Amino acid sequence: MRAGAGMIPRMERLLATYHITAAPQDIEARAQALALEQSVEMPEAAIMRDEIRASTLGRVQSIAARDAQTFEVTLSLAASTTGHETGQLMNMLFGNCSLQPDVRLVDVDLPPSLLAAFPGPRFGLEGIRQRLEAPERALTCTALKPQGLDVGSLAALCGTFAEAGIDIIKDDHGIANQEYSPFAARVKACQRAVRAATSRTGRRCFYAPSLSGPPDQLRAQLALAAEEGVEMVLAAPMLMGLPVFQQLAREIFPGPVLAHPALTGALGIAPPLFLGRLFRLFGADAVIFPNFGGRFSFSLEHCHALVKAAREPWSHLRPALPVPAGGMSVERVPEMIAAYGKHCMLLIGGNLLSAREALPARSREFVTAVETASRGEHR
Amino acid sequence: MRAGAGMIPRMERLLATYHITAAPQDIEARAQALALEQSVEMPEAAIMRDEIRASTLGRVQSIAARDAQTFEVTLSLAASTTGHETGQLMNMLFGNCSLQPDVRLVDVDLPPSLLAAFPGPRFGLEGIRQRLEAPERALTCTALKPQGLDVGSLAALCGTFAEAGIDIIKDDHGIANQEYSPFAARVKACQRAVRAATSRTGRRCFYAPSLSGPPDQLRAQLALAAEEGVEMVLAAPMLMGLPVFQQLAREIFPGPVLAHPALTGALGIAPPLFLGRLFRLFGADAVIFPNFGGRFSFSLEHCHALVKAAREPWSHLRPALPVPAGGMSVERVPEMIAAYGKHCMLLIGGNLLSAREALPARSREFVTAVETASRGEHR
Repeated sequence: MRAGAGMIPRMERLLATYHITAAPQDIEARAQALALEQSVEMPEAAIMRDEIRASTLGRVQSIAARDAQTFEVTLSLAASTTGHETGQLMNMLFGNCSLQPDVRLVDVDLPPSLLAAFPGPRFGLEGIRQRLEAPERALTCTALKPQGLDVGSLAALCGTFAEAGIDIIKDDHGIANQEYSPFAARVKACQRAVRAATSRTGRRCFYAPSLSGPPDQLRAQLALAAEEGVEMVLAAPMLMGLPVFQQLAREIFPGPVLAHPALTGALGIAPPLFLGRLFRLFGADAVIFPNFGGRFSFSLEHCHALVKAAREPWSHLRPALPVPAGGMSVERVPEMIAAYGKHCMLLIGGNLLSAREALPARSREFVTAVETASRGEHR
Repeated sequence: MRAGAGMIPRMERLLATYHITAAPQDIEARAQALALEQSVEMPEAAIMRDEIRASTLGRVQSIAARDAQTFEVTLSLAASTTGHETGQLMNMLFGNCSLQPDVRLVDVDLPPSLLAAFPGPRFGLEGIRQRLEAPERALTCTALKPQGLDVGSLAALCGTFAEAGIDIIKDDHGIANQEYSPFAARVKACQRAVRAATSRTGRRCFYAPSLSGPPDQLRAQLALAAEEGVEMVLAAPMLMGLPVFQQLAREIFPGPVLAHPALTGALGIAPPLFLGRLFRLFGADAVIFPNFGGRFSFSLEHCHALVKAAREPWSHLRPALPVPAGGMSVERVPEMIAAYGKHCMLLIGGNLLSAREALPARSREFVTAVETASRGEHR
């Protein structure tokens, strides 16, 4: 939350939009039940006070058929019920109804008094560009893999990728604080390797270590990263907890945060909303998402909606950098840039490593492919 | 994690079981792809080191058809990849594949060295019984509702419920730290009201306030609750973050923790596993879950499996108290006790409040119904 955010006027509303599977004759009752579930969580007849009925009770704002079995239902909920809090906002939007398989959360519209509680990305797309001194072209990202490698091997990979001119080298999201590559030793070695390479190439390159653990450990990791001169960190908001994500990096770490979508699926929140809008709201400077045509069955339409949500103007919130990933290859770079434009960062991991001994050349090929495709792109 | 937990031997494995929707001719390749996704996250051919292939690579342990379209697939994953951490365990089990709609996580089997890292419930079912001085019968629980009420009204409700002899009075899970009933003022007033009532009745009764916010706020709330003599707290692990849940209460608060299922999702992780086993593993003393025949479409079979998972012997982990809730009524009490036996706590909220002016009598009816049904039950 933003310190000093004002009171939320008691009558101010937020809008939450759901897709509900129901028969046409049932949808009105179903929508009303959802409005109760996500607000007073009791029968309306049991509410003793008229002012609660007027202020706190959820209301059905609209119902529109999408097809014979699915409806788009917008509820209006009292913004004051969120108490300005990340977790409680999620609770109001989708806490109980995440347990109902006929409901998906697809959109939210927050009033200015509530939005004001969330500062959003500190750097975002433009801030990352500035720090990388790459104002125009699409950006490149790769991952240290596989988990299980020792610190020396990971640092050697860092050196190879940095030499090749890749912008961001992130830990694979499965690399945490395991005995075979503990965070502190890994960060020191990888950061040193990147620095040695960039002093030769003269290009900027950031190593983004993966954070893990409960809050105390996260604090220690962020402090160590800052001390070692790390410029970016990787965090999985749903693994650490959304309120932790929203607050922690902001307090301790002076650079951008790259958000990973682990454990966001299967909850019933549409990815364009969750990864594109909510992660941005909670402060993600860059957002990794599963690319279409990869191994995650995301449609092109979903990906476009997600990228739009991450980048489009939205109150005071800086645009976040979209990072398509998953089953991508160097050969698909022109297709990706054509799909998303230049204002994105392409993440290719396994496809580079599949080159094995030819990894340095393959990595340079990736960098060149992105530069070339960016030149032909004006969006 | 348990302090001083030992190293996890590099070759020790955990088992994760999934239900996968696939055509019979595709299932073997799909299972292999999942084993890569949840371990090295890259093509096997790209792995340069044989020792990584032997230690870190996920393996398909078994594939069994469930029906023409669904298969039960068990993967063996290296236990060392979890690094003993709650978030990273979830990441290994379901981080990326939560984004794949054809996969559900349904069971896990953790080796002793990994289990040893999780102390589990500090009190559990038996500890809560002892503190309530109710060694035999089923327990009763209700909720303060609706959110939006001021502190005085919530405290008055507390008094009414405590007078009626209800065991646990929890905040509705939508009550957080809102301006109209802030945590500190609420806890003081509700705790005072419960104490005044129990000094008249001579029965034990606990008020369980709902925790919310980022870690610093949670710490302050837990410290205040302890200071005020609060005996139990309510926490939603997925709203605050699983690692926060696992660590925080344990460090600061001396009483049991009641876990709420908000944001745990409908389908991705089977509820018997998530709420019954994993919440218990992470330290929940009692676990609220949506009852069958209520408004959450949980089947009786699911509920039975969940209750079994919460209570059955499992290594050193104390049994957790199962708390069926949602759309329950006083009239259904005998059915619930017949379904779950006596070793549970029934949570009825809205159905009591629907009695409006007759709330005190209706609450006593609930207490009596549970006592009566418990006498006839020997499980």
